[in-house]
Order: sequence, then structure tokens, then C-alpha cells
Amino acid sequence: MLTDQQILRIPGPTPIPPVVQRAMNKPMIGHRSEETSALLKGVRPRLQKVFGVSEEVAIIASSGTGGMETAFVNAVHPEEEVLVAVTGAFGDRFSQICEAHGAKTHRLDIEWGHAVTAKEITDYVQSHPEIRAIFITQCETSTGVLNPIQEIAQAVRSISDALIIIDGVSSIGGTPIEMDHWGVDIVVTGSQKAFMLPAGLAFVACNKRAWERIETNKRPTFYFDLKKYRQNIEKNTTPFTPASSLLYGLEETLVLFDREGLENIYKRHQLMMKMVRAAMKALQLPLLANDEHASPTVTAVHPTQFKAADFRKVLQQEFNLIVAGGQQHLANEIFRIGHMGYCSPADVLQTISAIEIGLQKMGQDIQLGSGTAAAQQVYLEEGINK
Amino acid sequence: MLTDQQILRIPGPTPIPPVVQRAMNKPMIGHRSEETSALLKGVRPRLQKVFGVSEEVAIIASSGTGGMETAFVNAVHPEEEVLVAVTGAFGDRFSQICEAHGAKTHRLDIEWGHAVTAKEITDYVQSHPEIRAIFITQCETSTGVLNPIQEIAQAVRSISDALIIIDGVSSIGGTPIEMDHWGVDIVVTGSQKAFMLPAGLAFVACNKRAWERIETNKRPTFYFDLKKYRQNIEKNTTPFTPASSLLYGLEETLVLFDREGLENIYKRHQLMMKMVRAAMKALQLPLLANDEHASPTVTAVHPTQFKAADFRKVLQQEFNLIVAGGQQHLANEIFRIGHMGYCSPADVLQTISAIEIGLQKMGQDIQLGSGTAAAQQVYLEEGINK
Repeated sequence: MLTDQQILRIPGPTPIPPVVQRAMNKPMIGHRSEETSALLKGVRPRLQKVFGVSEEVAIIASSGTGGMETAFVNAVHPEEEVLVAVTGAFGDRFSQICEAHGAKTHRLDIEWGHAVTAKEITDYVQSHPEIRAIFITQCETSTGVLNPIQEIAQAVRSISDALIIIDGVSSIGGTPIEMDHWGVDIVVTGSQKAFMLPAGLAFVACNKRAWERIETNKRPTFYFDLKKYRQNIEKNTTPFTPASSLLYGLEETLVLFDREGLENIYKRHQLMMKMVRAAMKALQLPLLANDEHASPTVTAVHPTQFKAADFRKVLQQEFNLIVAGGQQHLANEIFRIGHMGYCSPADVLQTISAIEIGLQKMGQDIQLGSGTAAAQQVYLEEGINK
Repeated sequence: MLTDQQILRIPGPTPIPPVVQRAMNKPMIGHRSEETSALLKGVRPRLQKVFGVSEEVAIIASSGTGGMETAFVNAVHPEEEVLVAVTGAFGDRFSQICEAHGAKTHRLDIEWGHAVTAKEITDYVQSHPEIRAIFITQCETSTGVLNPIQEIAQAVRSISDALIIIDGVSSIGGTPIEMDHWGVDIVVTGSQKAFMLPAGLAFVACNKRAWERIETNKRPTFYFDLKKYRQNIEKNTTPFTPASSLLYGLEETLVLFDREGLENIYKRHQLMMKMVRAAMKALQLPLLANDEHASPTVTAVHPTQFKAADFRKVLQQEFNLIVAGGQQHLANEIFRIGHMGYCSPADVLQTISAIEIGLQKMGQDIQLGSGTAAAQQVYLEEGINK
């Protein structure tokens, strides 16, 4: 097999664009230097645009989980009750964070593979008016479900002033978020998904309503204190040592976002999702999420004729093609194809055609090329270059 | 379209493996340092193995054409006559080099797309016994033809002591060469083809017979004087400033060659050739070379229903997939798919599935997925991992 080639199609980290990789190789600069200030100054408005928010976005040297904890410790006052919509492993993690800090945590558990609906949230909040913050995962990476955030935010706004706090780790940059327009209060994401960077940066965006709540919060915190990040970013600096190479990369990622255009990026992700789903259907492979709530960044497939874990091994052996397994109770049951960030329709075709060979190797009686043809048909009907 | 992605499927340069790219980014070292000596010492036996030769291989900072001129100026004495088998643009270049130096040059012109046969060569040499060197291109990059070097060498040896000098630029590293075993006297290649490096290095390998001829040659030359390269490489150094970053890359390439194994590399190239050819046939696209003399590194396709040049534009517009055009009289008539060096069967599947979409965009009534399926079938029948 060709050595030193890995085809990485997991839902993050995604491959890194060459221009971003080169940028990250630049020599270190002082983190209190003019160069760092100039870099941050250029990054700020571009980041706001991605989140659709008029307030500053905090850049924290941390993984996405640190960003989620940041949202909690800043926005939720001591003694406040919270609701977590748990649609999979990452909703579960959100609830663990709330519980670790001793908050009274209401879990709204949804069957894995399904989205939470606006009605389920509002019904719960109406019967528990003491809830002051609602945590929802936008894209539930573990199941490939995209929860309908805009709809939920709109519905919640009309019945409660609870903050709406979104885990957007595997969605932001690949699917729209309009914080100001939708009335979403806090959104968290990480660098290693649709931002096409290595992990190591968390982004936490807050709207005006969230800031009002944050400013009067007495919960103790230090490294994750958002007020420090805001005070500093307004002066084009950071409260603590920034991860400079990741900032170099971020600068280039945001240039790439501008060059392709956010709308086009979202269309590309929609297209790739539809291509993957059409191919899996043509190959008789059941999808975990339904079409209505499918994520544009990751697709979970639940084969019934063979173990997903065995299939993943075959793809790795044949092509060094890496797709993800499942998490928790779905660990060996599903496989997940990442199609986010630095991934093109041509990459999706490659993945599908390799999967077809993998299915044959697993003894599945499929028609070679039929999944590819279904994806090609989608491309031709919806192609971004039409 | 996804920015900063180019899918490079031309017959060289090929994409560069990440480990090679990283090696080339190492800081410069003195070219007369112990580090450079250690590097060259490690490279020498590995290079000899690739060429199947017991003599030292010269490493020249030059493109492949410089390597071809090196072969000529060192091996052909003034006043000697030479024969060049011209099977395409690179055979033509070999003859231009001979003519530029004023050698009496016999051209054996073969129709583009065809190989030269052992009989054609021996017939010519028998009727022109004054010929002292025969130049043949192993893989004629412009047509995707692999000339039968082993057969030719064997046939020539029995009737003449003319040197056999091979342009192996687009073949060495992708298809076998056994200089000592086959009785091939000089082989030249460049770094940007199956060696998976950027252009900038030429390799010139000579056997004992060739060295005997070189040592008594009075033709004036300086930078390309092979005797200087041999004297220096024996002491683990170079006669002139080496291209250090390319040497770093070469060191890693040869490690990758060892890791995959030359036999496996040749099998992979054979497999990719068969996959491409099966797909093109399934898609009714005529191939320029026949199966018997097809190159494992590049395939030339001669569409009759549309202009190849237009088709290449479509592939670039849709996917930033770059395939090569033709050369000279075939400039707009053919397209050429490179499948050499850092290229895997999964990459070939990607190229084929993208080509299918390109054909639809050109208004061709093809069955989507049918070329992919033909290539997948070949993979399953001949797969390297069976």
C-alpha cells in the first residue's frame, strides 16, 4: 500500500489546507508583540461574521470542552437551574459539566439519532420556569443529527428569558449560525472541525443578553473568565499566553472563509451531505439520522448486515481511509463519515468509491459503482458550480 | 468550490508525501558538513538498488533534461554516430540534444502511441554498424507508452556493442529497471516523477561498460562531467553545491521505497494503470497506447466526441482536478492522467469518478458510476492487499 497516505474522513480533526499548514510553520513571535496585535485585530471582525454576532468573540487556548465549560461558568449563576438537551454523547458531556459544578441539571434525553424539537424544549421549560439556561448541541457529532437551533431559539424566546447556549463544535463554519438574528445567546466551537485547524483553540461568542448575565455573575473562575478575554481582545491582546501557531492558522482559515464565501461553504457542506446520504441509500446502508435533521458535516451509518467496527478495519487496511466509529452504546454499531472543513465533493466521491470496495470485501452483494452514481447524480443536480 | 485544494494528476510532478515535505523543511546545513556526508552515504546504496546497478549513481542538481545531456556528453565520443528511437516528445528531445552537440543523429521515428520494437532497433543498427549509442525513452510521457527496454537490450547485445542509454524520467521508481541484469548501460531519471519530489535533481546511473566508454571520452564538458560526480560520491560529497532540501527529501523518499518495497510499488503502479484503463474502456474513451505497451505511470486518452482541451477545463472548473494535455500535434487532442509516485488506488477512484461527472458536463451520454465500477472490479481482482 502507498505509504504515508492517510485519508482522514472522521468528524474532526479534518485535514488541514496547505496554506494553513504553511502559516502554522512560521517562526514564533512574541505574544505581546505588534505582530500578534495586528493578527488579532484582523481576526476579530472575521470571527464575528462567522457567528453572526456584533459582540467580540473570545479566543481561548483550550479544546472545545474547555469552551463549553467557559460558557457554563460565566453564564450560569450559582444556584441557577439548567436544562440540557441530550441528543448524544456531546449533550451528555454538557450535562456532566453542569453537574461537575453542582448545578441542578435537568436532562431532556432524546433517543440517539433523533433531534430535539422546539416543542419538547418549550414544554419542559414551561413546566420548569426556574430554568435559567438551556444547553443544546447544534450538530450532535455522535449521531450526525443537526438540532433545529433557529426554531428552538425563536420558540424559547416567546416563553422564557433563559439563556440559549449552543455547542457548535462540529457545526460552526459548516452550517449557518446567526446569533443576533436568531436570538442565540452563547455559541462555542473548537478549531479542529470546520475551521480546518488542529485542535487547541476554543471560540466562545456571547450576545448582549449573555454579557448582561455574565457581568453580574459571582461564580469563581480564573482561566475561563470571559470578562478577561473581552477586556483584552478589545485591546488586540489576550489575557494569557496565546497559542501562536494556531492563531497563524486561524488567520489563514478566515481568509479562506472569505475567499470561498460563507454561503458557498454552507452550500458545499449541504451538497456533500446529500451526496453521502444518496450513496448510502443506494448501497442499502441505513442512516442513523433522518433527512430532515441530518447534519451537513457528519453522517452516521448503522449497518445491519455486519459490524461497523469490522468494516472500518477493512477501509483502513485497503486504503488507510479512516472513518469514525460510534460512541458509548453505539461504539461498534455505527460508522461515521466526516465531510466537513477541508473536504470537497471529489473527496466525498473518493470515500464512497472506497466504501463500495470495502462492502464487497465484507461479502456484501452490492452493485459496484451504484453508490458513486447516486452521489454523482446529486452533484449534477445540485452542483455548486452550475 | 473548496479553496486551496488542487488534485494533481499529471504525469509529474506528483504530489509530495507529507513526510518528504516535512523533511525538505529542515534547516539548511553546510554542504561540506558531516551531516551532508552522512546523508549521501545513506542514499548511495538505496539509489543503486532502484536502478539495479552495482556502480555509483550520480546525483546532479538539474532537471531531467540536464541528466539526458549528461548521458550524451559523457558517453558519446566526438565523431560517433547515434540512434534515437523517437516514440514521442521526449524521444524527440533526446535527438535534439544529440544534434545540438553536432552528433550524426539517426532518428527512428515511430508513430505516436506505439512502442518501438526490438526488431526495429536491431534492423536499423545492423544496417548502420557505425552507430555507437542508442537512445530510448522507457516511458514516453507524451503518449503513455512503455517501450520494452529489457527485450531491446537483450536483442541489441547480441548484434552490437552500442551503448544503450535510457530516458527513465517518468518510469524509474514506478516500473522495474535492472541495469546489470538487462544489460542497460545508462539510465537517467528526474526527481519529480515516481520519486515523489519536486523537480531539481537528475539521477544518472552507468554500468561498467558505460564507464569504460566515459573514461576515455575527450568531449569537453564541465558541470555535467560524470567522472567528477563519481569521484566525489565515493567520498560522500558532491563536485558542486548540492540542492540540500531536495537531498533531505530524497533521503525520505528512499526510506518510503524501502518501507513499501520496490516490488509492491511496481505492483501498485500496475494496478493503477489497469484500473484507469478499465475505466476509460467502460466509458468508451479510446486509449492512445495498446494494452501490451501501456505505461504503469501515465495513461493517454484520445476522445473522439469532444476536444480533450475543453474537457480538461471542465475537470479544473468542477474539482480543480488537473490532468495533462497532449504535446506537439496532440496538444488539444488527448488528455493524460498521471498515476505515479504519491498516488494510490483510492486516488485513482477519485479521478475516475470526477471524470464521469466531467463527461456528463460535456454532454456525453455515459452511465454514471460505470467507469468507477470497472476500476473497482480490477481492484478486487488484482488488489494489492489480497
